[in-house]
Amino acid sequence: MRIQFEPIGYVKTVESEVPRHWSLSDVKGELLIEDRYSRGIEDIKKGQRIVVLFYFHKSPEFETARLKQTPPNRNRPKGVFSICSPLRPNRIGLSVLEVTGVRGSSIMVRGVDMLDGTPILDIKPHVDGRSSCPSRGPADRTR
Amino acid sequence: MRIQFEPIGYVKTVESEVPRHWSLSDVKGELLIEDRYSRGIEDIKKGQRIVVLFYFHKSPEFETARLKQTPPNRNRPKGVFSICSPLRPNRIGLSVLEVTGVRGSSIMVRGVDMLDGTPILDIKPHVDGRSSCPSRGPADRTR
Repeated sequence: MRIQFEPIGYVKTVESEVPRHWSLSDVKGELLIEDRYSRGIEDIKKGQRIVVLFYFHKSPEFETARLKQTPPNRNRPKGVFSICSPLRPNRIGLSVLEVTGVRGSSIMVRGVDMLDGTPILDIKPHVDGRSSCPSRGPADRTR
Repeated sequence: MRIQFEPIGYVKTVESEVPRHWSLSDVKGELLIEDRYSRGIEDIKKGQRIVVLFYFHKSPEFETARLKQTPPNRNRPKGVFSICSPLRPNRIGLSVLEVTGVRGSSIMVRGVDMLDGTPILDIKPHVDGRSSCPSRGPADRTR
């Protein structure tokens, strides 16, 4: 089974050195969303946190030897599905970014840990527990 | 630009009715990981929360009319990138699940909101802030 996606936009950042994880990053950048999808970002507002799924476009094909990798600053290998390495079977990255503004089809963000030109696959609301589920409604209040 | 992925495994659940969001779900299931990737899940342990990226394999092709959608229990449409709808340009889903056990290449989970047979694209550690970054090391302590 092969699954195909197309970018919904691209990351723009002037930083050439980006931190290796969003949780350590203060780097600013922009998410340039394709015009045909711009209505889909109309409810994204300054101050929100968003989940950005992207493609590690600079990563090589995955090799079995990478099923265990030693992360930076660690001294023992860990399974690839327990770390955020860009070397993974499906090269999908996930970052939680802070929205600092929206202008047209461009979302200004802080916390960037992607390279300039990174293809964006999806943007989702950041949900950190039951109470912040965006589709939660009155019928769910008793749960 | 077309980006191709292959499933690393599949979701198994006996429930035919799954909640519409993991944050509202107590449904149990299993993530059956392909044997060739089983070394990659060796550090996933009972009690952890994991991020599971999957393919909404039952969703139809995306249509522009779906750039705004009214979520269940809501009364006004929202941009597709602000909601968790399975109808989205790239049909990638994200759930945060609780690991209740690991046996061989099978991960037992709670919080399932995927259908039986859903293709899994990736598993990542659940990071909820700076302190839980899995690649954080001594050099990052001053940040």
